[in-house]
This record gives sequence, C-alpha cells and structure tokens, in this order.
Amino acid sequence: SSGDSLSLGIREPVYEVIEVKSDGMVSTRKISRRQLLKSSGLRPRDIRSVDPSLFLTNSVPSLLVREYAILLNLGSLRAIAMQERVLIFDHDRKGGKAFLKSLLPRLNPKNNNGGQSMPFELEVVEAALLSRIQRYEQRLMELEPRVQALLDVLPNRLSGDMLEQLRISKQHLVELGSRAGALGQMLLDLLEDPEEIRRICIMGKNCTLKKGDDNLECSTPLEKQIAEEEEEEIEMLLENYLQRCESCHGQAERLLDSAREMEDSIAVNLSSRRLEVSRVELLLQVGTFCVGVGALIAGIFGMNLKSYIEEHVFAFWLTTAGIIVGAVIAFFLMYSYVRTRKIL
Amino acid sequence: SSGDSLSLGIREPVYEVIEVKSDGMVSTRKISRRQLLKSSGLRPRDIRSVDPSLFLTNSVPSLLVREYAILLNLGSLRAIAMQERVLIFDHDRKGGKAFLKSLLPRLNPKNNNGGQSMPFELEVVEAALLSRIQRYEQRLMELEPRVQALLDVLPNRLSGDMLEQLRISKQHLVELGSRAGALGQMLLDLLEDPEEIRRICIMGKNCTLKKGDDNLECSTPLEKQIAEEEEEEIEMLLENYLQRCESCHGQAERLLDSAREMEDSIAVNLSSRRLEVSRVELLLQVGTFCVGVGALIAGIFGMNLKSYIEEHVFAFWLTTAGIIVGAVIAFFLMYSYVRTRKIL
Amino acid sequence: SSGDSLSLGIREPVYEVIEVKSDGMVSTRKISRRQLLKSSGLRPRDIRSVDPSLFLTNSVPSLLVREYAILLNLGSLRAIAMQERVLIFDHDRKGGKAFLKSLLPRLNPKNNNGGQSMPFELEVVEAALLSRIQRYEQRLMELEPRVQALLDVLPNRLSGDMLEQLRISKQHLVELGSRAGALGQMLLDLLEDPEEIRRICIMGKNCTLKKGDDNLECSTPLEKQIAEEEEEEIEMLLENYLQRCESCHGQAERLLDSAREMEDSIAVNLSSRRLEVSRVELLLQVGTFCVGVGALIAGIFGMNLKSYIEEHVFAFWLTTAGIIVGAVIAFFLMYSYVRTRKIL
Amino acid sequence: SSGDSLSLGIREPVYEVIEVKSDGMVSTRKISRRQLLKSSGLRPRDIRSVDPSLFLTNSVPSLLVREYAILLNLGSLRAIAMQERVLIFDHDRKGGKAFLKSLLPRLNPKNNNGGQSMPFELEVVEAALLSRIQRYEQRLMELEPRVQALLDVLPNRLSGDMLEQLRISKQHLVELGSRAGALGQMLLDLLEDPEEIRRICIMGKNCTLKKGDDNLECSTPLEKQIAEEEEEEIEMLLENYLQRCESCHGQAERLLDSAREMEDSIAVNLSSRRLEVSRVELLLQVGTFCVGVGALIAGIFGMNLKSYIEEHVFAFWLTTAGIIVGAVIAFFLMYSYVRTRKIL
Amino acid sequence: SSGDSLSLGIREPVYEVIEVKSDGMVSTRKISRRQLLKSSGLRPRDIRSVDPSLFLTNSVPSLLVREYAILLNLGSLRAIAMQERVLIFDHDRKGGKAFLKSLLPRLNPKNNNGGQSMPFELEVVEAALLSRIQRYEQRLMELEPRVQALLDVLPNRLSGDMLEQLRISKQHLVELGSRAGALGQMLLDLLEDPEEIRRICIMGKNCTLKKGDDNLECSTPLEKQIAEEEEEEIEMLLENYLQRCESCHGQAERLLDSAREMEDSIAVNLSSRRLEVSRVELLLQVGTFCVGVGALIAGIFGMNLKSYIEEHVFAFWLTTAGIIVGAVIAFFLMYSYVRTRKIL
Repeated sequence: SSGDSLSLGIREPVYEVIEVKSDGMVSTRKISRRQLLKSSGLRPRDIRSVDPSLFLTNSVPSLLVREYAILLNLGSLRAIAMQERVLIFDHDRKGGKAFLKSLLPRLNPKNNNGGQSMPFELEVVEAALLSRIQRYEQRLMELEPRVQALLDVLPNRLSGDMLEQLRISKQHLVELGSRAGALGQMLLDLLEDPEEIRRICIMGKNCTLKKGDDNLECSTPLEKQIAEEEEEEIEMLLENYLQRCESCHGQAERLLDSAREMEDSIAVNLSSRRLEVSRVELLLQVGTFCVGVGALIAGIFGMNLKSYIEEHVFAFWLTTAGIIVGAVIAFFLMYSYVRTRKIL
Repeated sequence: SSGDSLSLGIREPVYEVIEVKSDGMVSTRKISRRQLLKSSGLRPRDIRSVDPSLFLTNSVPSLLVREYAILLNLGSLRAIAMQERVLIFDHDRKGGKAFLKSLLPRLNPKNNNGGQSMPFELEVVEAALLSRIQRYEQRLMELEPRVQALLDVLPNRLSGDMLEQLRISKQHLVELGSRAGALGQMLLDLLEDPEEIRRICIMGKNCTLKKGDDNLECSTPLEKQIAEEEEEEIEMLLENYLQRCESCHGQAERLLDSAREMEDSIAVNLSSRRLEVSRVELLLQVGTFCVGVGALIAGIFGMNLKSYIEEHVFAFWLTTAGIIVGAVIAFFLMYSYVRTRKIL
Repeated sequence: SSGDSLSLGIREPVYEVIEVKSDGMVSTRKISRRQLLKSSGLRPRDIRSVDPSLFLTNSVPSLLVREYAILLNLGSLRAIAMQERVLIFDHDRKGGKAFLKSLLPRLNPKNNNGGQSMPFELEVVEAALLSRIQRYEQRLMELEPRVQALLDVLPNRLSGDMLEQLRISKQHLVELGSRAGALGQMLLDLLEDPEEIRRICIMGKNCTLKKGDDNLECSTPLEKQIAEEEEEEIEMLLENYLQRCESCHGQAERLLDSAREMEDSIAVNLSSRRLEVSRVELLLQVGTFCVGVGALIAGIFGMNLKSYIEEHVFAFWLTTAGIIVGAVIAFFLMYSYVRTRKIL
Repeated sequence: SSGDSLSLGIREPVYEVIEVKSDGMVSTRKISRRQLLKSSGLRPRDIRSVDPSLFLTNSVPSLLVREYAILLNLGSLRAIAMQERVLIFDHDRKGGKAFLKSLLPRLNPKNNNGGQSMPFELEVVEAALLSRIQRYEQRLMELEPRVQALLDVLPNRLSGDMLEQLRISKQHLVELGSRAGALGQMLLDLLEDPEEIRRICIMGKNCTLKKGDDNLECSTPLEKQIAEEEEEEIEMLLENYLQRCESCHGQAERLLDSAREMEDSIAVNLSSRRLEVSRVELLLQVGTFCVGVGALIAGIFGMNLKSYIEEHVFAFWLTTAGIIVGAVIAFFLMYSYVRTRKIL
Repeated sequence: SSGDSLSLGIREPVYEVIEVKSDGMVSTRKISRRQLLKSSGLRPRDIRSVDPSLFLTNSVPSLLVREYAILLNLGSLRAIAMQERVLIFDHDRKGGKAFLKSLLPRLNPKNNNGGQSMPFELEVVEAALLSRIQRYEQRLMELEPRVQALLDVLPNRLSGDMLEQLRISKQHLVELGSRAGALGQMLLDLLEDPEEIRRICIMGKNCTLKKGDDNLECSTPLEKQIAEEEEEEIEMLLENYLQRCESCHGQAERLLDSAREMEDSIAVNLSSRRLEVSRVELLLQVGTFCVGVGALIAGIFGMNLKSYIEEHVFAFWLTTAGIIVGAVIAFFLMYSYVRTRKIL
C-alpha cells in the first residue's frame, strides 16, 4: 500500500483537499504527499491514518496528536488540523460536508456572542466530533420509531416483508452501534491519556511537556495557566461528546437487543405454529388414510368380478354401513392412540 | 439539535419547570435557557443532559456535578439541584412525580426525627435515587411472580398465548435490567471518582479542591471536618443505592437468563415433538401409499373393459385377497425399511 | 418499602430473631427495629441488607462491616454478628438452620483441640461462609452425576422426558452457578478492599484506622501485632472460601456449558432427522401421486360411459399395462428430477 | 466434608502417597492427616486443596505457597512439594503417573549436563507444569486433525454419524479449552503476584519477606543475590508455561469456534434443504389434489346410477377430456397462485 | 516434545535457516540447536517459540526480547533477529517469503533517501510486522467485497450454493479476525510493558537497565539520548501497527457480525417460509380429505351391489349434487375451524 512504499520509487500520491483557514476562508487545493509532510511536520507513517485511499484498512476512528498537527480520522471524515488551517481530505463524502457545515459558522466572529473563543484547532476538533455525533443521533432518531413500530406489531402480524424490514433495521443498528461505540472508545482512550490532551493544549504555545513528569513547563506563568484552563475545557468537551456517544451506542444496543429477542421469539412462535399445523395435518392424514381404506373396500366391490354377494338384497347397505362405521372406528382408534402417545 | 445551535440565531428554548425550595415550597415556573444558564452558573453544553426535548440522545443516566449545581438525568426524571432549590423538568412524567412524592416529606422538619439533617442538595440526590430505585424494585416485584408462574407451567402447557406472555415478560425484563444496570454503572463511576464526590461536599462551603492533590482546603478546620464527614456519608449512601441497583439488575438478569433458557428448551421441545408428529405422518403415508396401490388395482379391475377373468368363479376373492395381503406386506416391508435406516 | 419510610409514621417493624451468645447459649427473641439500631450502633439504611422482608430486592450476597457489627446477607441466611452475640433473622429457612448447625460446635470449647481460638465474630463469619458453601457443594454433588448421566445417553436415546430432565438440570445449574458466582464475587471484593478487612480486625480492640494512611494505630504494640496477625488469618480464610466458591462456580458453569452444547447438538440432530423423514415422505408422495394418476385413468375407464374400446379384446390388458408402466416411469422420472436438483 | 470436620470427632483420614526424595528415591507411604500437618507445617484448611477425596469441589487448579511447602493441585495431579521431598496423592491416576515420569529424569544428576541445577522444589513445580501442559498439547494434537477433517467434509457429506462425531469433538474441545484456560489463569495470577513468587524463592533460605515493603532481607548478600536470580528464573519459567497454555487454550477455542460456526451453518443448511423438500411436496400435493378431484368426477360417473348421459356417443371422450384438461388447468391455476404469493 | 527433552539423550535437531546479514547478504544455512544456543545466547526454553516443528503448540504470536536476540513468532514467520543478522526458519512458507520481500529493500542503502536509518534489529522487527499486517489487509480486501455482495443479494436469492459461500466466508473471517486480534494483543502487551521496549533499545549499546528503577544507565550521555529517542520511535512504530491490526480485526469482526446476523435472519426467514408452505399444504390436505370422502361415497355407489336406488330417475344427479355440495361444505367448515383456531 502507498503508505509503506514511499521510498521504493513509486509515484508520489497527490491529494485533493479543501483548506479552511482560521478566518473562515475556504479553498480547494492539490497537495502532494511530500509537501504535506513538509508543511505539517508529520512522519510518513502518520499520513496513513487520514489517507482516504486506505479506507478499508484504517477504518477505526482515531485522533492523533503530533507536534504541529492533529490528525482526524472519523469514518468518512479525514482531516489534518494545524494551528492556522485545516486540510479536509475526501471532501465530497458526507463526513467532509457535514464537518464543513458545522465548522464554518464557528469561525464567523459574529456567532461568538461575547464568550471567550477557543483556539482554532479546538474549534476544528469540536466541529468534527459534533458533525459526527449529530449524524449518529440523526440516524438513531430515524431508526428508532421504525424499529419500535416493527416491535409493536411483529409477533402477531408476521410476514416475509416485516421480517425483511426487521433484518434491515437490525443491520443498520449493528452498524450504527459499532460506529458510535468505536468513536466513544476513541474518546475514552483520549480521556484516559492526560499526556495526549496536554499535547493538544501546548500546541502553538511556548510550553514543553516533560516525559514521565506530569508538569507543563511554559515560558510565562500566564501561558501555563491558559494551558491548564484549556486542558480542563478539553476534558469537559470530550466528556460531553463521550456521553452523547454512549447514549447513542447504548440506545442502538438496546434496540438491537430488543430486535434480537424479537427474532428469537418469532423463531419459537413459528416453531410452535408449525407444530400446530403439523398436528392438524396429522389429523387429516389419519382421516385420509381411513377414507382411503374405505375407498379401497368400495373399489374392491366395484371390480367387474363376481363375488356372488351382489345377489343378496341388503348387501349394498350392509357393506356401505360396514365401510363407514369401520372408517369412523378406525379413525377414532388411531386418534386416541396418537393422543395417548402425546403426539397430538 | 437545540443544545448545539445556541449561538446560531435559533429561537431560545423555554422550559416549564417545577421549582422546589429547600423549605418545601413548590411552584411552577417558566424559565428560558438564558435565565437558567445565568442563575445556575452552568455552561450551555451541560444543559443538554437534562433537556427533556433530547430524550432519545441523552438517555444514559448521569449525575453531573458543577460548581453551583448538580444535574440529574435519571431516565424520565430530569432535574437541576442547586443549594437552595431544585428545578424539575418534565414534571408530568412518572419520574418527576415519583421524585416529588419522595422529596417533599424529607423537607418537612417534623419527619426529621432528631437525627442530623443532610444538606438540601444531598436530600435531593437521595430522593431522586430513591424514587428511581423504588420504581425498579416495584416493577421487579410485579414481574417476578408472573415470570415464575410462566416458568413453572410452560414446558408442558405450551400455547401461543403463553409464548406471547413469555415474550412480553422478557422484553420488560430486558428493559428493567438495562435501566437498573445503567443506573448502577452511573453510581459505580461516581464512587470510583472521589474528586466528584468531594465536589458535591464542598458545594456551598468555603472550601476549594486542589487538582492533582487529594486534599481539601477550607477556610475553617470545622468546615473541613464537616465536609469530610459528609464525604463519608455520601459514599455510604451511594454504596447503599448501588447495592440495591445491583440486586435489581442481578435479579432481572437471573429471571431473563431463566426465560432465555426456557425459550431454548421450548425450541428443542417443539423440534422434538414435530419430529414425533412427522414420524407418525410418515407411517400414515406409508399406509396411504399401500392403500392407494390397492385401490389402483381394484380400480383397474373396475374398468369397463373385458379382462376375461370375470368369468372365473373365485376371481373376486382371489383378487381381493391379493390386494389386501399385498398392501399389508408392502406396508410392513416399507415399515421395516425405514426402521432399519433409523428414520422412523 | 419499610427500610426507607422509617420516619414517615409507619408502624415500626419487629423482627423475630435467634440470638446466639459467644458462650453458645441460644435464645429466641423479638426485637424492634429501634432496639436493634440502638444496640448495634447501625444506621437505618444498613438494616435493609439483612431485613428478610425485602428478600427480592436485597438478594445479592453482602458482608457489610460497621463499627460494632458485621451484617451478613448470604441468600436465605441473614444475620448481624456483634462482638459477643449474633442475631439470626429468618431462622426457619434452610440458610439459618445450616448456619446454626455449623456455628454451635465451634463455640464448644471442647472442640477447640489445642489450637488458638478465633474471636467470636470471625467464628460467626467462617461458620456462615462454610454453611453456605457446603450447601452449594452438596447441591453440585447431587446435580453432577445426574447431568453426566443425561449427557452420556442423550444424543441417542432422545425422548421428551429426557429433554425435560435436561431442562430442569440446566435450570438448577444456572441457579447454583449464579449463586456461587455472586458469593465468590463478594469474597473477591472483600479481599480487594484491605480497609474492610482491617475494620473486621480492629472490632473490639483499642485500635483506630486512619483514612488514606494504610497503618493501624493501637493503644499497645501487642494489640497491633494481634490485629495484624488476625488480618493475615482473615485473608487466608477468605481466600480459601473464595477458592471453594470458584471451584463450585466453575464446575457448575462447565456442566452448564456441556448441557448447552448438548442442546445445540440435539437441535441439529433433530433437524437432520426431520430432513430424513421429510425426504422419505417426499418419496412416498411421488409414489402416491403416480398411483393417483393411474387410479384416475382406471376410474375414467370405470365410468358408465361408452368408450367403444370395451369391445376390443386386449383393451383391458393394454390399458392396465399402460397404467402400471406409465406410473412406474413417471415415478422414476420424478425421482431422478428431484435427485438431480439435490432435493432428495 | 472431611476438611472441615477435623475437630468434630470424625475418624482421621489416612492418605496413601508416593514420596519422592530429592535424590530420586521413590517410596509408597501411608500418612495420616495429623502427621502430614505436623511434618509440613501446613494448616488443616490448606490440605483441602490437595485432598483427592474432594475432587469435585477443588477442581480449580491451584498452586499455594506456604512457609515450608508448595501445594500443587493441577487436575488429577495432587502433590505437596517440600524442600527435600515431594508427596504425590492419588498416584494411580494419569496426572500422578505423568508427573513421576517427568520428574524422575530431572533428579538424575547425569541428565544435568553442566548447567546449574535448580532447587528441588522448583524442579518439582516445573515437572508438574510440564507434565500437565504436555498432556494438553498431546490431546490437542490428537483432536486437531480429527476436527479439521470433519470441518472439511461436513457441510456436504452430512450424516447422523458425522454430526455425532462433531458433537463429541466439541465436547472434548470444550473440556480441553477450559482446563488449559484454568491452568493459564492460575499461572497468570501467580505472575501478577510477585510476593508469591518471592515466597517460593526464599523457601529454605535465611531470608525474610517484609510485608508491604518489596525487599527481601537475607542473612548474607550472596543469598539475596541467589534469591533474586531465582526469582527471575521462576518468572521466565512461568511465562514460558503460560505461553504454552495460552497457545493450547487459543487453539482449542479457535477449533471450537469453527465447530460452532459449522453447526450453525449446518442448521441453516438443513432448514434450507427442508424448505426445498417441502416445496416439492407442496407441488406434489397440488398435483394429488387435482388428480383427486378428477378421480372424484370419474368415480361419480362410475356410480351404478343412471345419468342418461351414457347414451350419448361421445360422452366418454368428452368427459375424459374434461377431467384431464380440468385437472391440468386447475393444477396450473393453483401453481401460479402459490408462485405469485411467493410460497413456492 | 523436542524442546523439553534436550538433555535426555535424544538426537539434537538441526534447523535449515536463511541468514540475512545487515548488509543485505542472504545465505541458506544448516544450524544445529547447540550452535544456535551458543551463538545467540538464548536458553533452550526460548527456542521453543520459534521452532517451526512445534507449530501447533506455539501458534500464539510472540515477540520475545532476550539479551542478544529478539525472537519473532508471527504465524508462519519464525525468525531470530540478532544485532548483525537475522535467521529465518521455515523460509519456504508464505510468512518467511513475504518477510524477505519486505526486509531486503530496507537494507539497500539507496532506498534510505536521506532519512536517518534505524538499527538493523528494528528494521527486522518492522519488516516482520509489516509483512504480516499487509497480508491480513490484503486478505481482508479480498474478502470484503465478496461478503458484501453476498449480504446484498442473500435474503432474497437464497440457494444452497449461496449458503455454502456464506459459510466459507464466515470461516475465513473468523480465522482472519482471530489472527489479527492475536497479533494486536501481542503489540498491546508489548506497548504496556515499557521494560521490554527498553530492552530492545539497549541491545548492542553500553547501557544497562536497572530492575525496579525506570532509568537507563549508559556509558555516555549521547548513547542514553539515542536510546531514549529510539524508545519513542519504537513506541510510535508499535502503536502504528497496533492501529492497523485493530482496524483489520475490527473490520473482520464487523463483517462477521453482519454475516452472523444474516444467518440468523435467514433461519427465521426459512422458518417463516416453511410455515407458509405448511399452511398451503394443510389447505390442500383439507381439500384432499373432502375429495376423498366424496370419492368414497362415489365408490360406494359404484360397487357392484344393488342399492335399489339405481332405479330412481334422478338418483345420479341427486347423489352427485350431494357429494359435491357436501365436499364443498365440509371443506369450508374445516377451513373456518382451522381459521378460528388461528392455525391457518
């Protein structure tokens, strides 16, 4: 794959990206891999996680913090946030568009009503998380009533069409649940790694992070205080989105569990109904057999052969009575037999 | 959704809340989002977790501690507890009513028989937890005998109606178990985060909580001591409700497991009974086939065609004997064949 | 429920308990809730966990250590162990009786052959754990051979009766496994919380346990040493019972897994046998259909209508041969068709 | 059970053990419980875990380190390793024999080619672990090709016999996997408890282990160094066996998963084939029904009653044509009906 | 097995390995176990994990760091990386070949375009991980579209062939998922054990690693700095491969879940369709039974016996009408009966 064969003489890939500056200016650019590495200070390996051509093998959401850039890989949204600009890969896909729609109003100073504005890269991260989670919430709000309606009518009004709808809803819920779960896991991993969060805070400040030691070292105490406040802000922001993710994930899992229980119940229900059908079939087959034996006897008397009974006056009526009574008795004998063996 | 588009020019939402003062006075008020933020010192983002209009996407129970307020989101109960008053959202729903019923007697000084009373916000938290858990316990106590009765009669007295009842009970148990589990998880998370508990304690006291450091700093040693005693009190209170939650959750899970095992057993039972039915059907089909062959022979002799056998004196009796004996022999041959192949 | 409405004017509950003194004296007493709280130094909330009237909602086993008492809730055994006596609730149930049977010999100084005796409250805890675990072990030893016997004969000698036995055994194993597991979990939680164990040790000694700090402070060094030795003793005792619990739990789970696998295999086995039956049925239906067509033709020639064939000499034999050969050929054509479509 | 009723006047149990001295001398002895306790410095409770008469309730593997002895309970191998000798209980069972076969060559100084030999008790522990794991590996190597062969032929060449083999293989894999997993868990627990390992190291040395503090205190620095080297040696030894256990466990789980997936697939496969059979049956029943209606009409014209049609010249041929054409048309009408309803 | 019986007089094994020097020179060698141990400073036990003859029992991937060598066991790739050379066992298998293909270009100084090159043993480790993960990614990219295509058409175009393809795809996904998961687990374990990573760094440097203490001690400060930079480099490298592993694993699990849900849905779908077929069969059997009764009556009148009805003029038409009307009425009576019992 391209990410690994950089130095092996293969043609350098060129990405078409949308660049959004911190003042809200949007432009479409082509940028080669080499340029990208140079301008962002990233390593070749890092690019892999946002390279949209590797969609299948970097599908786990990730938020990588590097010295001068944050790499965002949230499903169909791939972006690199730097201090003054953000590059959005694969901007034609839904993820990219939703991100732009969420990011641009934030950069408009008019919308920032009085409150202290966050650094640009944080605005980017929040817009990305928000656009992702809102999409999950929207899908959930579409799916929920549909599944609920199915669950309400299903056990009684069962049809192939209903089952197919249940199947498709389950498939969507599995997907939604797994995506919201993966995003939540990413946020949780981030929250449990204070160093990573601190690396977001010191981006673009004169601070350094000593390894092993938990303290920041900044050039001015003010800068240190801002960084620490920002850290708290980021934690609360991430916690907030984590909770929304978990709500989404939990709700999807709950619906999925209900749908699975319903499918199990339908299976037993169908089994039970088939048994009922089989039992009536059995009853009818007992009847058919008895009738068949009667018909055989009648057929025998209908043969063009002389039995010398035909001369008797009441032969017809006796035989007929014999056939009918015999069939009915046989039926009840067999019926009581299968009853006692608890088959019927 | 409303929580995110605050500053984008959308009409500000107004909430209808019930306000309960610490002296037990109850009043219904309308409060706009802006007022709410101002009076509680909360951030816009925090409101999301108690906003009842976002029911679907903030369904995970949460108890958020902020500087001047505790945000409670426990299923259909949404409230903000402050030092002197509590605002209850969505007060027409069951959760809100049960909470009021549980909270008001606690605020009556007559009921406080001698024992030292807890701070108002703790009374609120306890009343909220108590009203929630009591509701789960009550539902469990309704469900338990019904499920037990089903489990006792089911494998033998199987009917579509019974299966439907089992299905509905399972659905309720899944819901109850997941809700009690989520509440328990919330309590556990709270207990494992001593800082959060400490933030409840220092609410309304002249104490500060140093980050990183585990110590409280209060203006007077007495206040510190009270805060520490309160901390222990809160821990025991939460542990107590956690245990009740886990009892509920465990019991629901146990019943659900039994119901699932029962459904599995019913499936095998039905399968086994259908096999029994099928085997008798097979037996009858063997019989029907033999009778059919006999009837065919009889029918052949009944054709209006001359076989020149009709002139023979015993032709009828010989043919009849042949048909019957042949059918019986054929039946037993086929019967023994399916026996040896172990199909019957 | 009663535990919460203490101060709301509801009639105070009275418990009938058996009291065992440390010298082995047994007496039955009635004790009101108020007396109990007073004599044991417990809080109202604590009583909930041993109140037998709340069986359904405090079914999770627990061992709570308070300043002057240990609250034991082990399934049907509910007791409060104090320094000089133990109160047993619900003494008519199996758990209470087994506990008494296990406790009394321990209090008899004659049985204490030379070894150093443990403090009374520890004897109580050990007797309670022992009586519980022995009961689980006994149930397991009853169930194990029964399940094993079922697993040995089942796949081949399948009957509704056997399936019912398997179902009941599974139900018992689920229950046993979940109980042993819950008890084990309780012991594990206790072992992982050294503070709790230390609080058992210092009961009735002049020692205090400083919070945060891991050290005991006792009035005399000897007392401290005794407490530390006791701590080690308790840990080994709990570890021992934990291991027995886990053995029980593991064995029950193992048997349950085998029973589940067996049920799955039976389901597939039944499915496979039903397919076999269906295939033979299909064969017979092919035969029946062919015979039916033959009978129709014979019936047609049996109509009292003139076909003018009846005058031909060999008409009967030709027609008969045609019917039979046709039926046989039709049978084999249809048979080979379903063979090539791999249905039969 | 015997382990608990020591002091209650029950006859003291006597164990028949094999004793292996550190010089390789093997002897069979009878040893009473009292002697055992005295010579090994163990407590009565400890004996439980190696007492073979309690097989059912101490089936979880354990390796307990006491001051002067290591208690080994590895499935059917029960032994007490002391500094100069090892006592093997239940020596007739496979576990004991395999252990002896693995231990004795290690005690032979000729086999110790140059390398520094380990202390006797470590040789015992390694021999025990090795004999156990080799047995699991051997069983896995027997099972693996058999299961693989089944998985290769099964979906297509399905028979009751094959299903039975699959069931039995699954049962063996469940057992093997759970045993290897339990042994691995024991090793993992041991590795995560450095104190336990240190207690093995200082056995027979003049060292003490201070609680809480992580340091050894030995009489001579040399002894301390040896103990520390031994500790590392033990860790590597345990890690090595842990990895082998996990390989075994993982492989068994993998095969089991494949077998389970296969069983699921077989169930769906059987269901699909039964549907196929049912559809052909349905087709035949449609045909049989049409033929039956035709036969009824023919039978009606065959009644010995006068319809006055019999005088018409072409009555026979018209009726016959009507019956046959009608039956064929009815068949195709019903056939197209079930096709449009997507049943066939 | 060979790894354990070293000293018991069994013939020493000889391995055929490929040796790659750090300058890219490749040669095939035979090396005896003894030589291997001597030249690599490994212990006999260590060799087990790379010994290809023990494939079944060391199938869990592992990366063991020893003083002078790194042992790689990644599925079919078994290698020992030393400072100046790497020995590849079992070089004919896919794993070995892919590793060589990935390693050799890295050793070519021309490909190292300007960037600082990594130490040889790290190049080996990265090449090994890369070759493994690329193979998993490749397999996933092959499987994904096939499974997706199946999932798209399956519920409607169900055939035995499709089911078989689904089964095989599931089997491959199970395998791929478990392998990628095991490799990811290995990387995670490595990342969580900083000591192990540090042992890779100091290989071939004048540094020592103090146990317990987290600091390196090197002969020169420069060397220490290089080692620390290398440590960070290794961590990022491992994290990167871990993420790729998890992407692979997650994607395989997601596809597998979808396939499992599909199989469940197919099972319910088949059940539902069989019920439909059964219901139509039942309808036909009701019809067949009624026709059969009619045919019996017709047959009775067709007997060659005198009923004295034959003389009546309208006897034929009355009887015929009676049979037909009776059959139709009987049919509708039975039909409405099974409808009211909700069987049909």
